[in-house]
Amino acid sequence: MNYLEIKTHNDLDKLKLYLAKNQYDEQENTVRKIIKDIREKKDEALFEYCHKFDNFKANKDNINVSNTEFEQALSQVTLEQKETILYAKEKIENFHRAFLPKSCIIEQNGAILGTRVTSVKKAGLYIPGGKAFYPSTALMTIIPAYVAGVDEIYICTPAQNSYINPLLLYIAKLYNIENVFKVGGAQAIAALAYGTQSIPKVDVIAGPGNIYVAFAKKLVYGDVGIDSVAGPSEVMVVSDNCEKLYAAYDLLSQAEHDANAKVYYVGFNKECINKISDKFFELAKTAKRSEITLKSSQNALFIQTTRELAGQIIDEIAPEHLELQLNDPYSFMNSFKNAGAIFIGEYSCETLGDYVAGPNHTLPTSQTARFSSVLSTETFLKKSSIIHYTHKALQQDAPYAIKFAEYEGLFAHAEALKVRL
Amino acid sequence: MNYLEIKTHNDLDKLKLYLAKNQYDEQENTVRKIIKDIREKKDEALFEYCHKFDNFKANKDNINVSNTEFEQALSQVTLEQKETILYAKEKIENFHRAFLPKSCIIEQNGAILGTRVTSVKKAGLYIPGGKAFYPSTALMTIIPAYVAGVDEIYICTPAQNSYINPLLLYIAKLYNIENVFKVGGAQAIAALAYGTQSIPKVDVIAGPGNIYVAFAKKLVYGDVGIDSVAGPSEVMVVSDNCEKLYAAYDLLSQAEHDANAKVYYVGFNKECINKISDKFFELAKTAKRSEITLKSSQNALFIQTTRELAGQIIDEIAPEHLELQLNDPYSFMNSFKNAGAIFIGEYSCETLGDYVAGPNHTLPTSQTARFSSVLSTETFLKKSSIIHYTHKALQQDAPYAIKFAEYEGLFAHAEALKVRL
Repeated sequence: MNYLEIKTHNDLDKLKLYLAKNQYDEQENTVRKIIKDIREKKDEALFEYCHKFDNFKANKDNINVSNTEFEQALSQVTLEQKETILYAKEKIENFHRAFLPKSCIIEQNGAILGTRVTSVKKAGLYIPGGKAFYPSTALMTIIPAYVAGVDEIYICTPAQNSYINPLLLYIAKLYNIENVFKVGGAQAIAALAYGTQSIPKVDVIAGPGNIYVAFAKKLVYGDVGIDSVAGPSEVMVVSDNCEKLYAAYDLLSQAEHDANAKVYYVGFNKECINKISDKFFELAKTAKRSEITLKSSQNALFIQTTRELAGQIIDEIAPEHLELQLNDPYSFMNSFKNAGAIFIGEYSCETLGDYVAGPNHTLPTSQTARFSSVLSTETFLKKSSIIHYTHKALQQDAPYAIKFAEYEGLFAHAEALKVRL
Repeated sequence: MNYLEIKTHNDLDKLKLYLAKNQYDEQENTVRKIIKDIREKKDEALFEYCHKFDNFKANKDNINVSNTEFEQALSQVTLEQKETILYAKEKIENFHRAFLPKSCIIEQNGAILGTRVTSVKKAGLYIPGGKAFYPSTALMTIIPAYVAGVDEIYICTPAQNSYINPLLLYIAKLYNIENVFKVGGAQAIAALAYGTQSIPKVDVIAGPGNIYVAFAKKLVYGDVGIDSVAGPSEVMVVSDNCEKLYAAYDLLSQAEHDANAKVYYVGFNKECINKISDKFFELAKTAKRSEITLKSSQNALFIQTTRELAGQIIDEIAPEHLELQLNDPYSFMNSFKNAGAIFIGEYSCETLGDYVAGPNHTLPTSQTARFSSVLSTETFLKKSSIIHYTHKALQQDAPYAIKFAEYEGLFAHAEALKVRL
């Protein structure tokens, strides 16, 4: 059991050491090569990689899911599956609509000033496939793009042996998305970023993936917008009580994701920590996915600290999911800033946020909640400034702007104002 | 004179070809080396680069601007300079305050759901120095960080021969920023991203710079947040009249920035284009900064097209600054989406936006307005989700979430809900 005791401010260094990041130079070089190949040889390189990595003999005719494949898939979806998906769909859409940013203007001394919000024209969504396909991820990636008003949505998903999960195609159909490309990995990201003969160059790429996908997104960023660079999933539970043992179940539900899942428990007294960790390791042994949980539970970190230092621990780890199982959670809120999503109170377990609560479940990981936000419509929006002067407003501001331009030695800037006065 | 005629949708391909981007592999490798050195050798490498690139013998005692240097600088600023800066400061602050995003919650079937907005803790601002120092850039970079409520602001600026412009220190002092480091280039970005003994690791890096700075920001992105990857400055004027020749003056004020500045004029009839281009080239010859404008004017592109196709041309170029000198600009607005800042009407020249209008002048360049936004407080903010369920809300949503978890084979996710029901 990994255990840290953080009793003073200086003890936080122990945590920083624990968190110090690995570098993945090898994977980065592999990804760099794939991107170069796709940029230079486009479809030719793309089809080779599909064959190599997914055992799928791709060509320009079969790389896009056909109408027949759509029809076959739709016939396999059960009524119960449809009802469950539609329930989640409505709640997620409602939340994303409620928080959709709008253009706005103000008037300042006779000038109209503002921010114009527009969607990007083309979005490429990466959706993991095969065994790792989760219908909830499809909803959580498509809905913000759809609600933002993106003109064209393209999906890339790895299709091992040409197989695509029917639930993905059912969800794509709900949003009239016709372009589902059977391409995964770094090659999908490169194709969406730079375009090939078969796959259009897009403006923004979003969606989770493995470490190769994450590196590819990091490397193409700047030439195209991306949502974030995601790592393994994480949860931190901060709790001041342990009667109900909920924390142990929540830690386990994170641990079952994969062997690299990260699990943190922050408690204020040793008995509670022991009680939760005992239950957690017991559950990890008997879990249905015990092959995974036996591994990932070894990485779980239990921290004993004070209520005063807990906020600093949260900010250092900046957990993707943070559960506050505290008696007075709201009075604790101002002690920290960094977390992807905050689940408040004993009934708000992460599973609700994963599927049906409404906010997005694609969240910043690996300490990036220090500066990154939850996926939202904003990932697919951009803001432009609006500046509209009347002649009167010009007369008032021009003398200052002219002086400023002259301090900077930009005389033509000043001239453009003088000619209008 | 570079001239394109775009009369049909197919003609847009000519424009795409014209815009096709260069790759800068050589600079990228140089920057990669600098970042690696700073990560491995920290201050030692940093001081070497300061000496090599800025002829400044840096050490841990002199890398930070001293109190004496601050005092000397403040005594050199004139009253008129102070008044001009304070006038701009107030207008820019007002705008940024008016558009500061706030936390917000909604209630959905008994659950509290929302978005929590918090500032990053530490921001690193890059401010170009020496001949390229512009006080307006200091205001435009510091103010959004300040209004966002960043806890700690650090400035890096190149100090050739240890010199720093007094106006920069005057502005830093207005915001009680004490940490101004004499470091420029890619080494400054690497130091802020990963930390050295002298320079703290920050959460977000913002501010314009040369191509080395831009590459460094691109490469550290993901380990730290950045505002955007900026290239040479651009303006596009779209006009349906040319009586007043304002467009020629506005093109020139862009052309005087540097030899790589990009200038576009879009007109609907050949006479107007000739009239504007004649005036522009005449001004470029006689400009105070003619050494620059004679070069940059060679890159100016004049496009003749129809009102119908103009929107598509804007979206393809996605200009940093867009001036709409049209008789009915607002009816034209829905024909395009991509622009950094939009200046509407004949009196709204770019110079106003550069200095005193209020919106930020740091804008996406090189076609990145397809997906990037103007610099704003949001660069220094991040959004977390809030999820707070009552037991009643849990009872309603849990059955669907449990089914969803089971479709995904995540049984511990389902269990965490069942134990609470």
